[in-house]
Amino acid sequence: MARSRNVAPLDRFSAFSDGVFAIAITILVLELPVPLGAPHLGRTLLEEWPDFLGYFISFAYIGGVWVEHAWLTRLMKAADAASYAMNLLLLLSVALLPFSTRLMVGYLNEPQVGLAVLIYGLTVLLASTTLSFLMMYVAAEPSLVLDEVSDSELRAIYPQRWVSIGVNAAALGLAFIAPYVAVALYLLQTLLLLIGPLSGFRLRRRSTAGTRQP
Amino acid sequence: MARSRNVAPLDRFSAFSDGVFAIAITILVLELPVPLGAPHLGRTLLEEWPDFLGYFISFAYIGGVWVEHAWLTRLMKAADAASYAMNLLLLLSVALLPFSTRLMVGYLNEPQVGLAVLIYGLTVLLASTTLSFLMMYVAAEPSLVLDEVSDSELRAIYPQRWVSIGVNAAALGLAFIAPYVAVALYLLQTLLLLIGPLSGFRLRRRSTAGTRQP
Amino acid sequence: MARSRNVAPLDRFSAFSDGVFAIAITILVLELPVPLGAPHLGRTLLEEWPDFLGYFISFAYIGGVWVEHAWLTRLMKAADAASYAMNLLLLLSVALLPFSTRLMVGYLNEPQVGLAVLIYGLTVLLASTTLSFLMMYVAAEPSLVLDEVSDSELRAIYPQRWVSIGVNAAALGLAFIAPYVAVALYLLQTLLLLIGPLSGFRLRRRSTAGTRQP
Amino acid sequence: MARSRNVAPLDRFSAFSDGVFAIAITILVLELPVPLGAPHLGRTLLEEWPDFLGYFISFAYIGGVWVEHAWLTRLMKAADAASYAMNLLLLLSVALLPFSTRLMVGYLNEPQVGLAVLIYGLTVLLASTTLSFLMMYVAAEPSLVLDEVSDSELRAIYPQRWVSIGVNAAALGLAFIAPYVAVALYLLQTLLLLIGPLSGFRLRRRSTAGTRQP
Repeated sequence: MARSRNVAPLDRFSAFSDGVFAIAITILVLELPVPLGAPHLGRTLLEEWPDFLGYFISFAYIGGVWVEHAWLTRLMKAADAASYAMNLLLLLSVALLPFSTRLMVGYLNEPQVGLAVLIYGLTVLLASTTLSFLMMYVAAEPSLVLDEVSDSELRAIYPQRWVSIGVNAAALGLAFIAPYVAVALYLLQTLLLLIGPLSGFRLRRRSTAGTRQP
Repeated sequence: MARSRNVAPLDRFSAFSDGVFAIAITILVLELPVPLGAPHLGRTLLEEWPDFLGYFISFAYIGGVWVEHAWLTRLMKAADAASYAMNLLLLLSVALLPFSTRLMVGYLNEPQVGLAVLIYGLTVLLASTTLSFLMMYVAAEPSLVLDEVSDSELRAIYPQRWVSIGVNAAALGLAFIAPYVAVALYLLQTLLLLIGPLSGFRLRRRSTAGTRQP
Repeated sequence: MARSRNVAPLDRFSAFSDGVFAIAITILVLELPVPLGAPHLGRTLLEEWPDFLGYFISFAYIGGVWVEHAWLTRLMKAADAASYAMNLLLLLSVALLPFSTRLMVGYLNEPQVGLAVLIYGLTVLLASTTLSFLMMYVAAEPSLVLDEVSDSELRAIYPQRWVSIGVNAAALGLAFIAPYVAVALYLLQTLLLLIGPLSGFRLRRRSTAGTRQP
Repeated sequence: MARSRNVAPLDRFSAFSDGVFAIAITILVLELPVPLGAPHLGRTLLEEWPDFLGYFISFAYIGGVWVEHAWLTRLMKAADAASYAMNLLLLLSVALLPFSTRLMVGYLNEPQVGLAVLIYGLTVLLASTTLSFLMMYVAAEPSLVLDEVSDSELRAIYPQRWVSIGVNAAALGLAFIAPYVAVALYLLQTLLLLIGPLSGFRLRRRSTAGTRQP
């Protein structure tokens, strides 16, 4: 069987991406300043609210991108050279988030907040766009998609991703004019990413009568 | 076959979680201060005992949570959107532990020790609660559990997890009144996590007579 | 069945390598300085261009090495002790890249730029050479290669890898004489690594008529 | 089928360990000081030789432990609670190596070198001992070992591991009396770990005549 350079292994595509997502999301904590020797620890921590806000927004955002990525690879049977390269661009922008998060939160109380939020927004827009392009490329490439995936599911990707690009482009436009509104929009987006799925969460007692018998 | 958005891949659920657990547990070491140029190296290291205590407690605690997580996924056949989101909240609190560990150990010899231990306790309680909720949710969701898992095993999860939440809530209550007792409780908990399983450990010589023939 | 020490598991070979590649590529961001409290944020960031250039070159270079590594393991059915050891030397040089990148960018505007670029070039040449040796060793070792891989594909590895070693040796020779030309060559190499595969990237609309029916 | 708490998944045992090994080995680079703005870059780097020596020794040592770990799991069909706990102790000592490496190299030119090498040696001895105990425990536990593994291979583990413990205990004894001899012993051990397997490495040209036909 001829092996074309164009068909690349999916398991390492997933494993490497999982690694980069996991590291980027976990080293966010290294940017949280630990106030050692503060005479008023409580007040000092409260004054650090931009750091905690940035930690939460970026953690939830990377988590949300990872969920989409995991959902995408579930539909795939292989990767190819173009999807590998687009995926690297996605990972490059995700790996930049600890940097641009720290920049944004460092200027939230400063006059230059507009530019700092703009740079954060550019990183998020880059991540959103490369993820969207990756998903659309895969959806249109029959050699990469499992046979049992329905056409309707693949077509549903397009409007969803253009909405995501649109929202992040709008937030970017707001960044310079009304940076705090843009930050609120990023917070709202990540809350929806987390709370949306949690709406299906229920703490039920496992019934003692055998519920699993048919 | 229709693929519902609600059924998500379990392999990436495990791989991403393994990544975050592994990174959080390994970057704890970056918080250990290396005393360069100390005239009395031995004494300086002994004075750093809170750092080593914090390293050990948090390493063992994250290790313990990881063991429970690995034990949980062993029972699962799939994940869904709600378990993905609850898992992200668990990982968020685990990823915060390097921060709150450093905060706690930085104030163990300071008057503000109560607040620092309280914040550490909150992170641990958040991790314990989200892990417990994740386990209970999965146990009550037949579509996520392997068919061969017995009902009795799943029901046993509930009392165990409420005990864990209760112990960590009690430690939190102690944090402000008697912070050192709370720290001792955290140390005890992690020692039990490690020594409990090690009680089954034995160094036996492999017998030369064929022990494995039936 | 006798298990020779010489046949080692391929899954952990891949998983460990994925881990080191993912961490090395992601901690590059920790070397990007965040200019806190800068009165002219925009100008300060523009003056940091060597840092961003270094981030991009090293990210793309590690990404490119990872793609080659994933492509290699796709041809393999097992690893052995020699390939494990050569792989460790490859990972050692990749793990050094965050250090030598920071060194190179820190001296791009300094008189000692030649030596700094030379050290960066040595790291890259070491990575390129160990990767090439690993690939050539595997290609010549029938016990490690899947039976269905064609001889022509394996033989094609040799000229490709010698070209890669040659280009990186040439860049190293240039480093001392004309360091900026060497840096431009590294940038060109990484752009080709990313843009080459992206030339196959197309954003197509998924046609509404069933394109996947035969 | 009853699922005993004592039988734990092997895939996550491996994946989590791979993660910790990969992170510990890769963050060693964060301890290498980048001499920015040095007037004599070459001389400054040469004066940093203890850092590079420490980087190399610890990289090769962690790599060597990882190879043994991968070789061990190749023989296993399952893990249990005791092997999970012993593995956590192994990972704890491996994760400490970036700290004790930095301590050792920071005092190589200082009068307190003995104590610093002693602490490094303790970490290495702890890693060697927990790895050995893990391997011996697994070898004596038929429920964890694949049926096709021969008794002779399992029995061969015992003398090998006692030699490893003995060498590292001897190096520890030397640390205080003759610290540089102990460091030389660690360097020798890691060189053997890498060069031993590389002795099987050969750069052969793939013959054009079909070598793989029987």
